[in-house]
Amino acid sequence: MKNKRYSDNDINAIYRVIEQRRDMRHFTSEPVTKELLNRLIRAAHFAPSVGFMQPWRFIKISSFPLRQQIHQLVEQERISTAEELGVREDEFMKLKVEGLLECAEVLVVSLMADRDKHIFGRRTLPEMDVASVSCAIQNMWLAARAEGIGLGWVSIFDPKKLANLLNIPASAKPIAILCIGHVEEFYDKPMLESEDWAKRQKLEYLVFENQWQDNK
Amino acid sequence: MKNKRYSDNDINAIYRVIEQRRDMRHFTSEPVTKELLNRLIRAAHFAPSVGFMQPWRFIKISSFPLRQQIHQLVEQERISTAEELGVREDEFMKLKVEGLLECAEVLVVSLMADRDKHIFGRRTLPEMDVASVSCAIQNMWLAARAEGIGLGWVSIFDPKKLANLLNIPASAKPIAILCIGHVEEFYDKPMLESEDWAKRQKLEYLVFENQWQDNK
Repeated sequence: MKNKRYSDNDINAIYRVIEQRRDMRHFTSEPVTKELLNRLIRAAHFAPSVGFMQPWRFIKISSFPLRQQIHQLVEQERISTAEELGVREDEFMKLKVEGLLECAEVLVVSLMADRDKHIFGRRTLPEMDVASVSCAIQNMWLAARAEGIGLGWVSIFDPKKLANLLNIPASAKPIAILCIGHVEEFYDKPMLESEDWAKRQKLEYLVFENQWQDNK
Repeated sequence: MKNKRYSDNDINAIYRVIEQRRDMRHFTSEPVTKELLNRLIRAAHFAPSVGFMQPWRFIKISSFPLRQQIHQLVEQERISTAEELGVREDEFMKLKVEGLLECAEVLVVSLMADRDKHIFGRRTLPEMDVASVSCAIQNMWLAARAEGIGLGWVSIFDPKKLANLLNIPASAKPIAILCIGHVEEFYDKPMLESEDWAKRQKLEYLVFENQWQDNK
């Protein structure tokens, strides 16, 4: 693969999709074609993985009653999170944190079973399988944005309850509920920034040299 | 942001970079400009993050003696991993798992300090900060590939020892040593596939419907 640097146009497209990707929670009812969904899952499968373990598993939720049960699990955890947030409880409860009942497709993404057999790159950092699956989801997210499709990663759920619901074995673990679908428009900024939940940090405060510096 | 779907050319560029990105361990000595490195770090900062916590911190290693100490830590853990691998010890020891002493730039990427304060999306899945930082690194990886620059994620190190070396506080945690630099050429396939460490799995075995299925 000698052809190294991409054209300026292609490089610009890649930086643009990185900047314009959003965690979406508002969707229209328009269906997503099977071909498009397959392209996104295929993009995920090209992610890097620690020791090439490819720890990602995708469960497509085609049953609407099952989707409703998943929504109930998220709703339970949303309330528990709000209670634990204390002073920010009301503010949190006003946020839209998922679009599970509206989006065209729901995918649960899980870590594979029997992960402990894989120690390449994980002996001291077992969470590297989560890292690999996250890279896979980021691939899907960017591909979806380019295709004009919204994607939202919901992590407000109890993984044990979701595992029970989907017969996921104890040695695996679901880490994402993905809402995928067409959108009216993409948010200009991250929704949590527009809603004043948090501000974007200045990048210069996050980059140190040779040792940790706490600039904040 | 009404303009939703990208042009076919742009979409193709994005799928192409997803497919051509590689975990690189071979680098040339050619320097990487400060501007280019900054573009990659800026791409990381546009990643999604759970509750918009932006948990990524970047430590640029400009001291060569420090880089050599980091290399020593990786070498120690490489040997420990090999021993634990047992029957595959020799096979593992033949693999090139990092390009730390050759690459132009080394970045250590760490989770932020005081992560426990952030429970939005993390009450039941605290590892979502690792997920966010991994999405950030995947952004860098794709941007680097498009710019013709190689990137390798090394996770073969003891995070406590690396934290000690860089004065990273106990509530933070380093999860990546990134090797960044020019390359002679990008690998055609993942190195661990070419070296017969593992095979690429068939995607159809990794996609289930409505419940877990163990197809393997």
